[in-house]
Amino acid sequence: MSAHVATVDVPAVKKTPEPLNGVNTPALFATIDAVRNQPQLGTFQFRANGEWLSGTHMRTTMSDFSGAGGEHSHKWPYTAFADHPEVLCGEDKGPTPVEYVLHALAACLTAGIANIAAARGVKLSSVTSSLEGDIDLRGILGLSKEVRNGFSGMRVEFVVKGDAPEAKLKEIVQQACARSAVLDIVSNGIPVSVKANT
Amino acid sequence: MSAHVATVDVPAVKKTPEPLNGVNTPALFATIDAVRNQPQLGTFQFRANGEWLSGTHMRTTMSDFSGAGGEHSHKWPYTAFADHPEVLCGEDKGPTPVEYVLHALAACLTAGIANIAAARGVKLSSVTSSLEGDIDLRGILGLSKEVRNGFSGMRVEFVVKGDAPEAKLKEIVQQACARSAVLDIVSNGIPVSVKANT
Repeated sequence: MSAHVATVDVPAVKKTPEPLNGVNTPALFATIDAVRNQPQLGTFQFRANGEWLSGTHMRTTMSDFSGAGGEHSHKWPYTAFADHPEVLCGEDKGPTPVEYVLHALAACLTAGIANIAAARGVKLSSVTSSLEGDIDLRGILGLSKEVRNGFSGMRVEFVVKGDAPEAKLKEIVQQACARSAVLDIVSNGIPVSVKANT
Repeated sequence: MSAHVATVDVPAVKKTPEPLNGVNTPALFATIDAVRNQPQLGTFQFRANGEWLSGTHMRTTMSDFSGAGGEHSHKWPYTAFADHPEVLCGEDKGPTPVEYVLHALAACLTAGIANIAAARGVKLSSVTSSLEGDIDLRGILGLSKEVRNGFSGMRVEFVVKGDAPEAKLKEIVQQACARSAVLDIVSNGIPVSVKANT
């Protein structure tokens, strides 16, 4: 019975999370605690600046954002190019805008999987994903009012390898979906305003 | 009255569109006609493959897609990197996933503006855009069930310069919005399925 008494009398020691999967798990937990205690620290604004180059070719610069109570700059201003492919009358100088939607979703879910696995003490060895988006161009070409402009649907398929049983790895993907900013945006839509100046 | 008779008897000459703004306008009109005559040519599928690198850092490759009745490859496999910034426990080795949503929207609308201006015979001199997305991280951090994971809203502001009156330039932006794949996706949401394999 003494073993039983011991489990009652000795307070449970909270396990300190270890860095794992390249994730600074202690910093991640500290961030969650900080936002729990000061919710205004969780208010972020991300920004981008686009510049038309020629035809359907353009460049976006992503350099500054606000959050955690202050202004921040990326290590350097990141740029991304986009274009239409030749079969769609572009010059194929970059991925298409809709492929960047696929990328944004892959990136958000992959980061979530790595963070959540680290938080749960699961060491990942690889995470790969294949994404597809179907689109009927009669929408954007103005040829049918019944056809929407965007993807009719998107499919994401992950292959996750790590030191946990299949069920646990699948739960991690499920939780990444439940906490994904981009999955929410593309699944549920958000209010967007567009203003034009000359 | 002879002038009136002439307008009745002589068939209207359809103005041939000229390439403009770096847009191959005749090819664009020919594409629209081709899809009008054979709607199945408008069926496209875009694809991306994601690979986790470490922490929240990942890389997406965009190389192949189908459409116009066949398989296509980009000139070369395009890659894009994403990461979380240091303030969000990442290593800031690339833009965040949500910044790529801003980029995708800027790219889609900018391409639309260039195409539509060319189709309407408007020569553009510059198109720049500023985008903002607001996000409360209590959603993705699991700290509030009332806060959504994604942007609460996005704002896009264009400055469009060209050889047309302000009203006509603004109409072009309006039409680009009405025909944008990415604006539809992020405004209205689409069905997304996520599958996990191990």
